[in-house]
Amino acid sequence: MAKKEEDVKLLGFWASPFSGRVKMALKLKGVSYEYLEQDIVDKSALLLELNPVFKKVPVLVHEGKILAESHLILEYIDQTWKNNPILPQDPYEKAMARFWAKFVDEQVGPVCFKSVAKPDKGIEVAIEEGQELITFLEKELTGKDFFGGKTIGFLDLVAGSMIPFCIARGWEGMGINMIPEEKFPELNRWIKNLSDIEIVRECIPHREKQIEHMMKVAERIKLA
Amino acid sequence: MAKKEEDVKLLGFWASPFSGRVKMALKLKGVSYEYLEQDIVDKSALLLELNPVFKKVPVLVHEGKILAESHLILEYIDQTWKNNPILPQDPYEKAMARFWAKFVDEQVGPVCFKSVAKPDKGIEVAIEEGQELITFLEKELTGKDFFGGKTIGFLDLVAGSMIPFCIARGWEGMGINMIPEEKFPELNRWIKNLSDIEIVRECIPHREKQIEHMMKVAERIKLA
Repeated sequence: MAKKEEDVKLLGFWASPFSGRVKMALKLKGVSYEYLEQDIVDKSALLLELNPVFKKVPVLVHEGKILAESHLILEYIDQTWKNNPILPQDPYEKAMARFWAKFVDEQVGPVCFKSVAKPDKGIEVAIEEGQELITFLEKELTGKDFFGGKTIGFLDLVAGSMIPFCIARGWEGMGINMIPEEKFPELNRWIKNLSDIEIVRECIPHREKQIEHMMKVAERIKLA
Repeated sequence: MAKKEEDVKLLGFWASPFSGRVKMALKLKGVSYEYLEQDIVDKSALLLELNPVFKKVPVLVHEGKILAESHLILEYIDQTWKNNPILPQDPYEKAMARFWAKFVDEQVGPVCFKSVAKPDKGIEVAIEEGQELITFLEKELTGKDFFGGKTIGFLDLVAGSMIPFCIARGWEGMGINMIPEEKFPELNRWIKNLSDIEIVRECIPHREKQIEHMMKVAERIKLA
């Protein structure tokens, strides 16, 4: 747990899954922080100064040390505040958690959402291709409460913030259930397990507000 | 150092910087391995079986454990064979090494090379924009022998395999010196330091053969 005098600031955006997962990790660790909501279109001088390379949220500032990119921030948090471990200790399990997290952020998130919002080969094909990707995660979850095992871990934070509490809300807005219970029982059980955790509920965006936001994102994809 | 009986296999492609950095790391650790050269166009059944998600080299197989994605493989190697450490122990320094490695692979490599091969806004602008990115790395190197400090480390393996021993050879083939000594003295000193290491020389692609290969890559970018 953070010492009282520690200076922790988080620059984030309310609807960003990348910000959401960092909020969850800080709460899991019991770290108090100052939250600075950012405009991701008209970017603040502070954001541009702190993350001149990628110019993106989230940015964590801990005692003057500046960190960007959510996967790196999560690992830094885990190594700095050691209670409630997030990443596995075993080198292979750790590599696997990071592998699937990369898959979620690079494939499931952008590819599945984009293909549904702008289905070049028809919506049926987009759904089928998206579900093919999601099936990899269904298999990873088999017989487990969380990707991390009995408790919430790194991949749960990454996949949780990205899938059920971000892009699935966009799909829902488009009238599509990409993760039906009969096809993905493990993922549905996992989403329920996540929703049962108070810290998760505290950190996820407001449902209706986010559906509305994701519909705007889908609209921009359509026009691109 | 690996025990004699350990089973280590690497699936790679001779000109791939992602494969090259894993070769270097294994050599640095003194790990013997069987190398399986892959056709990256007509992919082998073995590659597709071992990496069904990304279908890419490198893939490391250690005692039946399958690992893909070079950054994760490097960290796994570092945690499994602890001699000659590659990643910093300090959480912040480690996050920084990973941050700049991500920058090299996601920005400098693809963006700088693509913009020079197919300069939409003219070659002068492409060079200027590329050099703006490279300047971030020049600053990171100031006063150091390697990104890792006194000895070669994670970011040196990533940036070394990607910049001087891959895309710079493509630029050279196009008659462009993107990293002139007078503008980037630190990077030029670093490239010399890298070239002085026998393990690096053993793992980098044959110069003329790679220039030829990179010219073909540039040609494909132009036609895309």
